[in-house]
Amino acid sequence: MTEPLRLGIAGLGTVGVGVVKIVRQKAALLEARGGRPIRISAVCARSRVKDRGVSLDGYDWEDDPVALAQRDDVDVFVELMGGSDGPAKAATEAALRAGKDVVSANKALLAHHGQALAEAAEASNVVLRFEAAVAGGIPVVKALTESLAGNDINRIMGVMNGTCNYILTRMESAGLSYEEAFAEADGLGYLEADPELDVGGIDAGHKLSLLASIAFGTQVAFDAVELEGIGRVSIEDIRQAAGMGYKVKLLGVCRMTGRGLEQRMSPCLVPASSPLGQLDGGTNMLVIEGDQVGQIVMRGAGAGEGPTASAVMGDIIDIARGTRVTTFGQPSHSLVQATPARAGAAAPYYLRLTLLDKPGALAKVAAVLGEAGVSIDRMRQRSHDKETAPVLIVTHKTTRAALDTALAAMDGTGVVRDEPVALRIEKV
Amino acid sequence: MTEPLRLGIAGLGTVGVGVVKIVRQKAALLEARGGRPIRISAVCARSRVKDRGVSLDGYDWEDDPVALAQRDDVDVFVELMGGSDGPAKAATEAALRAGKDVVSANKALLAHHGQALAEAAEASNVVLRFEAAVAGGIPVVKALTESLAGNDINRIMGVMNGTCNYILTRMESAGLSYEEAFAEADGLGYLEADPELDVGGIDAGHKLSLLASIAFGTQVAFDAVELEGIGRVSIEDIRQAAGMGYKVKLLGVCRMTGRGLEQRMSPCLVPASSPLGQLDGGTNMLVIEGDQVGQIVMRGAGAGEGPTASAVMGDIIDIARGTRVTTFGQPSHSLVQATPARAGAAAPYYLRLTLLDKPGALAKVAAVLGEAGVSIDRMRQRSHDKETAPVLIVTHKTTRAALDTALAAMDGTGVVRDEPVALRIEKV
Repeated sequence: MTEPLRLGIAGLGTVGVGVVKIVRQKAALLEARGGRPIRISAVCARSRVKDRGVSLDGYDWEDDPVALAQRDDVDVFVELMGGSDGPAKAATEAALRAGKDVVSANKALLAHHGQALAEAAEASNVVLRFEAAVAGGIPVVKALTESLAGNDINRIMGVMNGTCNYILTRMESAGLSYEEAFAEADGLGYLEADPELDVGGIDAGHKLSLLASIAFGTQVAFDAVELEGIGRVSIEDIRQAAGMGYKVKLLGVCRMTGRGLEQRMSPCLVPASSPLGQLDGGTNMLVIEGDQVGQIVMRGAGAGEGPTASAVMGDIIDIARGTRVTTFGQPSHSLVQATPARAGAAAPYYLRLTLLDKPGALAKVAAVLGEAGVSIDRMRQRSHDKETAPVLIVTHKTTRAALDTALAAMDGTGVVRDEPVALRIEKV
Repeated sequence: MTEPLRLGIAGLGTVGVGVVKIVRQKAALLEARGGRPIRISAVCARSRVKDRGVSLDGYDWEDDPVALAQRDDVDVFVELMGGSDGPAKAATEAALRAGKDVVSANKALLAHHGQALAEAAEASNVVLRFEAAVAGGIPVVKALTESLAGNDINRIMGVMNGTCNYILTRMESAGLSYEEAFAEADGLGYLEADPELDVGGIDAGHKLSLLASIAFGTQVAFDAVELEGIGRVSIEDIRQAAGMGYKVKLLGVCRMTGRGLEQRMSPCLVPASSPLGQLDGGTNMLVIEGDQVGQIVMRGAGAGEGPTASAVMGDIIDIARGTRVTTFGQPSHSLVQATPARAGAAAPYYLRLTLLDKPGALAKVAAVLGEAGVSIDRMRQRSHDKETAPVLIVTHKTTRAALDTALAAMDGTGVVRDEPVALRIEKV
């Protein structure tokens, strides 16, 4: 195997440029470790004239990623364009059909079409790898697919969107409002073109669905992820959480339960002293719990040129070495369609309600909770602010169903203004 | 590849029993993930009659591990006996010569004979994998060898001996003396038969030397690891460190410097707020710094039946899948012999001296430090205790060479009783 491994790189944004730099600057290292030279045959991106700060000399240019994917001098199609459909999907499918191995950083594509793509890869006897699609430089896909393959996985938890963690951290550390922290993240270029992908939890939900598939031998089911973004988390919530020893994190959790596959991505309270609670800024963290290995925690940069390119290169070097692992760790036909288990096990919840300042308002709220079977651990009414008063409640363990019943009935009390905020207190 | 992968397991201690249990209890999972059944053909251990709490029905018994390693019905020789020489070495060599893949948890064997064994594996076109030899269940060998192969590694740091970390944690949290914490760890069965392997830093040094080889493309050089155990760390040191915002950890550090390969395993002060500082009890942690990926932190159980067996199974499943990676991540002939760089870069140090209560004693010590070019950041003399007084000093950044010069001259002052304790303050 001393023939060079020839890459076709589609997408020359941050990550693509990072990959080109590594291939150009580390030829000897890559050849020593991969066992053969790694070269770029051709590239493809939107603009041919843009200065990307790296030389593209010696690479053919393709305007069409599908044409790139099918070139005879491409062994590995490296998909760094992004997008769940459109050119990324067409080119990935074309590459697999043409018998090319594929390395992808595209979480949206895999979350929406992972099963079909895995089947296509196996039909062509090629591999489709995606370490860079989940948590940037953290080697969690490989750890789960390979290192921990002797485990039944009990639970995976993770903070997998650095932008959301940055916003929540800035709200806490600098006392910024959500809007201010959002604007700051935007100014730093941290947000996706469609910010809802970040702050709506969608991007992190994509990643969670990929890990769940590997962990539990199930078909990727992004649509079954219970998604809740961070847009309704207020500085008040963060302060109250801190006062109780918690931090607010956009936390992904997946577990296989007796009722089916639980996949949740939502803002949760986690103990401030836990590894997840201590995770500040744009960093990501994964917590994997296996029946044999116990708890493994992995922390690192979840985005950025170097970290994401590092993950892409890991997959490419695997292919250079001849490593062949199925997309989700077992044959795609053996991946089962899991029943979605909504709402998770019972847990305590943090609630913030805005009450109208009327006599008996608090009693009405307490009654509604009681009728739904939700019992109150702690309650605190803040000093009045014009005609409303915020009320903060920590419940005892309750099911989400019971809580939703209570929240739905709040409207009927006539004393609750705005939609209540309910944050799960997660045991980590 | 639907032929079963057939194992020969040598050593039925904690880890061996764990592996047998997984193979027996997870046949369907292993077959789905490995792509073929995984079976045990034969086993070998010291005692044939001992009740190990797991059935060995259906496995042949071999008294001689070399015979086990050479059996026709063994594809993978799983070496879980331990020991740097003797039967473990003979059987591993026999397996490699006989064309068997080898999965080993034996850090001592690999640290002492890694280069020769890697060459033997390549000569026979077989693989020698050893995830379980480093940090138990934490998939650090794979992360470094595969996931991060596109990085130039800047530094690896790690707490890799859970027993030492347990002792140091107990000294701090329960105020135990070193001797008391040692006795407690011994009572819990945490110590190796030769405790010096743990508390002398040897076991952790073995692990560090293996990671250094992968990270820097160098031949394993355990003899070049600067080793210092935890036996001279006192409760006083731990308290003083805590007062300054530090914790004492048996910390491994390796770096490639302009002067050569630095490998150190010694008790160090690390910031109490850092991930390494927060690591309590028997848990292990690795911090890998790559030029692309930045800092990756991995935490998990460093020992025990389940975690170590998980690592062994990861290697076995890799082999079942057909993954072939060279022992240290690149061909053994390409691994270079690194010049050892002793003593590391300049750093601040914590010193504890026991001074005789004589007039001018402190001035003499300060003069000796000054003459060696070691400048003092902070100094504190504790209240007198009979005829001696402990003096605690934090130096400004200094080289170990300068410090050693000063420490060597302390004896000549006639005012220093006992050997001074010097702990590096590591920037993590």
